[in-house]
Amino acid sequence: MPHTPLVPLQRVKSSGLHAAQLVVTGFAAAVLIGTVLLLLPISKSGPGGASFIEALFTATSAVCVTGHIIVDTPVYWSSFGQVVILALIQVGGLGIMIFASLIGITLARKMSIRGRVTAAAEARSVGMADIAGMIRGIVVITVVIEAAVFLALTLRFWLGYGYQLGDSVWYGLFHAVSAFNNAGFSTFSDNLVGFATDPWICLPIALAIILGGLGFPVIMQLRKEFRRPLHWSMNTKLVLVGTGSLLAIGTALTCWIEWSNTATLGEMSPADRILAGFFHTVQTRTAGFNSLPIGEMNSETWFVSDILMFIGAGPAGTAGGIKVTTFLVLFFIMYTELRGEGAVNIFGKRLSRAVHRQAITIVLASVAAVVVATGAIMLLTDFELDRVLFEVISAFATVGLSTGITADLPVPAQLILVALMFLGRLGPLTLGTAIALKQRRTLYEFPKERPVIG
Amino acid sequence: MPHTPLVPLQRVKSSGLHAAQLVVTGFAAAVLIGTVLLLLPISKSGPGGASFIEALFTATSAVCVTGHIIVDTPVYWSSFGQVVILALIQVGGLGIMIFASLIGITLARKMSIRGRVTAAAEARSVGMADIAGMIRGIVVITVVIEAAVFLALTLRFWLGYGYQLGDSVWYGLFHAVSAFNNAGFSTFSDNLVGFATDPWICLPIALAIILGGLGFPVIMQLRKEFRRPLHWSMNTKLVLVGTGSLLAIGTALTCWIEWSNTATLGEMSPADRILAGFFHTVQTRTAGFNSLPIGEMNSETWFVSDILMFIGAGPAGTAGGIKVTTFLVLFFIMYTELRGEGAVNIFGKRLSRAVHRQAITIVLASVAAVVVATGAIMLLTDFELDRVLFEVISAFATVGLSTGITADLPVPAQLILVALMFLGRLGPLTLGTAIALKQRRTLYEFPKERPVIG
Ligand SMILES: [K+]
Ligand SMILES: [K+]
Repeated sequence: MPHTPLVPLQRVKSSGLHAAQLVVTGFAAAVLIGTVLLLLPISKSGPGGASFIEALFTATSAVCVTGHIIVDTPVYWSSFGQVVILALIQVGGLGIMIFASLIGITLARKMSIRGRVTAAAEARSVGMADIAGMIRGIVVITVVIEAAVFLALTLRFWLGYGYQLGDSVWYGLFHAVSAFNNAGFSTFSDNLVGFATDPWICLPIALAIILGGLGFPVIMQLRKEFRRPLHWSMNTKLVLVGTGSLLAIGTALTCWIEWSNTATLGEMSPADRILAGFFHTVQTRTAGFNSLPIGEMNSETWFVSDILMFIGAGPAGTAGGIKVTTFLVLFFIMYTELRGEGAVNIFGKRLSRAVHRQAITIVLASVAAVVVATGAIMLLTDFELDRVLFEVISAFATVGLSTGITADLPVPAQLILVALMFLGRLGPLTLGTAIALKQRRTLYEFPKERPVIG
Repeated sequence: MPHTPLVPLQRVKSSGLHAAQLVVTGFAAAVLIGTVLLLLPISKSGPGGASFIEALFTATSAVCVTGHIIVDTPVYWSSFGQVVILALIQVGGLGIMIFASLIGITLARKMSIRGRVTAAAEARSVGMADIAGMIRGIVVITVVIEAAVFLALTLRFWLGYGYQLGDSVWYGLFHAVSAFNNAGFSTFSDNLVGFATDPWICLPIALAIILGGLGFPVIMQLRKEFRRPLHWSMNTKLVLVGTGSLLAIGTALTCWIEWSNTATLGEMSPADRILAGFFHTVQTRTAGFNSLPIGEMNSETWFVSDILMFIGAGPAGTAGGIKVTTFLVLFFIMYTELRGEGAVNIFGKRLSRAVHRQAITIVLASVAAVVVATGAIMLLTDFELDRVLFEVISAFATVGLSTGITADLPVPAQLILVALMFLGRLGPLTLGTAIALKQRRTLYEFPKERPVIG
């Protein structure tokens, strides 16, 4: 059921490429504008202006909704500067959701014209067919969720902590936007460490993060067909199952390893330990707030967090990482292979073969980026592998958690993080688009051969 | 051109499974016998006998040609004990080559019966069709190469270092066998650190290691068709290209990072630095001798070595790791995907689709084993991630290099290494066999769907 059966392939192809170029150009422009605004003296508290690397790093971190910082947000930036950061976060978060969905629709059309996949499945997984309606849907969902979390947080800051109403509103707004967009920026110098045992702060923020991390196609389908799970797309099922499993496993491991660490969970009540362990796990996928001092955690917890951060959350949402769908697709490929079955079936649907190679490619390219950046930063600094790897994965997956070394890195290493945030935010999306659009039929075939594997 | 077109599928299948079970049983029996022999007081220098964990660890390390040690080989074990170790190395090395080739032939027959792949390509890549001839070929190649290296080393130890002829013969024999089988055991307490700048020791050992690491199918084809590269199988081409590239890249990176480290290369002449950097790179794939103090290297070098160790060398040889063929297959899949082409073509041949998933499965299972073991050993000890990761990859890929922590690990962690060595030696092979034998046709097909990736 193609929507535009008469559009020639060439036009669809160029509009797809155009969309991908638009994402990169748009994000680069947002970073540039953000950098210029943050360089203005009005953006900085106290006399003088920020340095170029401070402005560039902060703007990139905000637009790519990462949350890595090299200066203390509430102390270093003025109120104006913080408003700029918040605006960059919102632009970046909306931008990625809109562009990812836009590319999804373009690809669905292209696929349907080539007859490779039915457009119906694609369109359903994207959520709707017409672009204006889709953008409207994304904006409405964003505003509704952010408003609800804003209200809850503002009331709590005002009534529970005695902040003035104006401050409470600002804190509530900032954290609601920062949470739904998985940004992890905070208006508190210790991020959310002061609220580690307060479920009225932690749970609304966690909920906003999880919803933002599900991705727009999933939210859209849940809104429309919440009571009809049999109608859910493979994408929706994968994201929900993956989100639930990773949250449960991550919380269990974090609580287990940190249970007696007096610098993190050790001094809390059992219920609070579970709350804080859960909250930390939510942050690794890939929001980046912290209610526990990351630098004081056991390096085993960093290792577990590395894996959760690398996987990330759902596609076409505000989360980074290789995405939970990519991870589960690889898992199901392995499972099928071990069972010796021919086709990879997931929840009663057969996985398109083209997706196998796409998933491998995304993962390999991501591993390559992480490995090269880790090696480079280790050469540039004296930090240990565990801290550097954590920092690199955190930047690439746009998480923003840090063991505390970000501000101490030399400028070249900080520039590597800037590049990683940008690459991690746009790389998988544009790579996926380029792959899908470049696919061409070859007119000849070589004879087949199998090398020895393993 | 199937060789046994009348063998019913059932019999081939059970003979294939039987071969895989035979490998595991055979290796377990060798480890058991080795453990018992090393427990005898006659195996140990000085009074008393070895402890159970010392005997088990050493026997496993020898049979799996790993080279990890928790006691100093020349000091702790008597001459008898060292002969036992050498015999275990030879049995383990020959065993893996024979069984891997045997399974290759069985699978080739099965495949040809099912009509999935032409047996001709398989048989050519295995080297020959009849099993007795194949085993004879493996033994002859082993004896010839080991004898040549034995002669070179013995002469050098005798004439160059003034060791007595008897000692020189023993050292020459031990290192020749240990090198060709990629075992890494040495009769010197500092392994080969005393010979770091001596090309007459390092180069014959490096050559034996590289040849053993190519794998029997490649050696066999080179012997027969050295001057006809157009006839080489995809397997041979992949192994040769991968070996050359990884050696060059690894040597360049190791020399670059360690160039001024006075504890490793820093005090040597430039030519000696390159020799020692090359020799270290050879050891990571996956022989495990060391002519440089690994514990004194920069952690960046450990990181580079981690990657080389994990990849390993060629299949159906004495090397461990995921194998260079698996690594390159994934690389070519990514390359094809980025170019947007349909079929994965390597050196003018089309890669069998079944190999895509097999390669992913091997890599994912290997990553899972390394990640779980690393997490577990970090929980059991206070060592940093970089040292633990190095130790775990080294054991899993049967390398045997260590940053120096092996003997200091608690017994449970040493048992994890024992399990890893066994798993790393036999896992990919038996996994690959199980996968290939279990493949069955499904009689129904689910509708196709693509989740969002990346
Ligand atoms: K983030
Ligand atoms: K070894």
